[in-house]
Amino acid sequence: MSIDREQPGMAPGEGAALCLRDMGAFHVGGAALSLSDLPITKKVLAAGGEPVRMDPNGTYWVGQMYAQYFFPAQPLSSVPLQLWHGGGLTGACWETTPDGRPGWLNYFLRQGWDTYLCDAAERGRAGYAPDHVWGAPISQTAESVFERFRIGEGIHGLDEQGLTQHAFRGGQFPAHAFPSMVRQMVPRWAHTDSVILEAYASLLERTGPSVVVCHSQGGMFGLTLAMAQPDKFRAVVALEPAAVPASSEPGTLYDVPTLIILGDRIETDARWPSIRARIREFAARHPSVDILSLPELGITGNSHMLMMDANSQQVAGLVQQWLARKLLSS
Amino acid sequence: MSIDREQPGMAPGEGAALCLRDMGAFHVGGAALSLSDLPITKKVLAAGGEPVRMDPNGTYWVGQMYAQYFFPAQPLSSVPLQLWHGGGLTGACWETTPDGRPGWLNYFLRQGWDTYLCDAAERGRAGYAPDHVWGAPISQTAESVFERFRIGEGIHGLDEQGLTQHAFRGGQFPAHAFPSMVRQMVPRWAHTDSVILEAYASLLERTGPSVVVCHSQGGMFGLTLAMAQPDKFRAVVALEPAAVPASSEPGTLYDVPTLIILGDRIETDARWPSIRARIREFAARHPSVDILSLPELGITGNSHMLMMDANSQQVAGLVQQWLARKLLSS
Repeated sequence: MSIDREQPGMAPGEGAALCLRDMGAFHVGGAALSLSDLPITKKVLAAGGEPVRMDPNGTYWVGQMYAQYFFPAQPLSSVPLQLWHGGGLTGACWETTPDGRPGWLNYFLRQGWDTYLCDAAERGRAGYAPDHVWGAPISQTAESVFERFRIGEGIHGLDEQGLTQHAFRGGQFPAHAFPSMVRQMVPRWAHTDSVILEAYASLLERTGPSVVVCHSQGGMFGLTLAMAQPDKFRAVVALEPAAVPASSEPGTLYDVPTLIILGDRIETDARWPSIRARIREFAARHPSVDILSLPELGITGNSHMLMMDANSQQVAGLVQQWLARKLLSS
Repeated sequence: MSIDREQPGMAPGEGAALCLRDMGAFHVGGAALSLSDLPITKKVLAAGGEPVRMDPNGTYWVGQMYAQYFFPAQPLSSVPLQLWHGGGLTGACWETTPDGRPGWLNYFLRQGWDTYLCDAAERGRAGYAPDHVWGAPISQTAESVFERFRIGEGIHGLDEQGLTQHAFRGGQFPAHAFPSMVRQMVPRWAHTDSVILEAYASLLERTGPSVVVCHSQGGMFGLTLAMAQPDKFRAVVALEPAAVPASSEPGTLYDVPTLIILGDRIETDARWPSIRARIREFAARHPSVDILSLPELGITGNSHMLMMDANSQQVAGLVQQWLARKLLSS
């Protein structure tokens, strides 16, 4: 299997029809939760509609997640591949890129993977708990995201000229299309990690052992679950995981084949040098973990949003090659 | 074109591969919004991660919506079909039904429609505004939804036996799978109608004239926009629209071919008799509007969630036949 013969910037098979033997979606995980003793109100829910008595006391489902599945007509492998997004994002980050190119969902589908496109608990089509349960979420400003995702620095507002001017020179993120990425951002919470992990565990219980391609906050979830339930993972590909599992005990086992990919400009970032140090310690302790630092391969300019960068297909190709070497040839 | 020869409960072509010439997603609509003078905090966003300075002052994008598109390899028509969900729901309601059958997305794709699966502004992958902008959303209890969606009455909690016992006898909704529908529910606001309408207008600007299949709150949006911008609509199919456009002036034009579908048990509902009365007035004033009352056709037991009911494929078939008569034969 080689992606080297493909046209640059073009997904394998792009242009040809994508044939699926099935597609659909489901929610999984979470639990029923009852609320009581809250005040009753009346609200008109649609202009011109009848007022509805809103009694918040009763049963909700809380902590579930959402997965869409796309199964190619001619699958490459009996193992499915799952796409787990990062914090403040949804499964949409793996679809069409902000500047309109095919995303990693289409890439891996065209490679023949049975693919699950996930919205973690608390966001996107997964939904989130009533206000009474988790309190108000956090929303991130465009200015902060531009900097923390290592696209550039010092923007104020979203005018295209400012974005292009303040993007890092040689950066791979399509800065002019940054507003389309900002539209993808969703509010998040900072204390729901265990809820999200449980939902992912329920998902894997349903899907069976999988290749998990995960990003940022999702990278942390992927690595953490792979350590706790290695039998549910055939491989983990973590794009710039926001954290690695703490393994204070020297003998802690982690033997899932794992690829951690790092982008560029980590040295000059406020947070990434220490995250990378912990990633390196983690890889040093666990021989099943490979680190792929793109700048060290001569691939420069990648932001935190590797699946959206101008060279996203090239990075996807590296993932596919690593997976082929680790899984498909054995 | 006839669906009558198909096996009952089976979508046309189900079992055969579904071939797409393209699929992807985008966000559209909304506007940048700046917040200032709010307090700054510091939060750890991923367990074991580095604390992040959270400055809520800055730029957000607010009021955008999300659309996934699926374009069959062999389209039926040059006009796309859009699926607009109801209140407290997302595009997921058109996918796999709560009891695991193919939903209307797959049905219309297999009929050959270029299909947009939408999340309206404020929910799902569309995201929602920071807490400072819209305030806290409303969440609906399972007990209230069970009653208001005319599935049954008097449940407390979500145990399967209780659900089956309290479902209306002869009802079409798969009551045992109601928890899977509850997991689909998302919080909503009651004062964002104009934001949502503007986003849908932006979507239609991008997609061009469409057939819009819309439900409940989405039905109200579909009919309202079709009255305001008839050139953007080839047809509207409104499943139990929560409201119809007010047209106090007798000469108000509404000439988009429109089908309004009503389910069963409206007479005994607290709100639906008056909504239906307004729907009938609306249809009486505008000859382009057809009403299809399922019980009057001898199709009984349908809930408010027509696309999830046990006979959802039969109802989809009626929609397809009406569309074929109105559009494809002309």
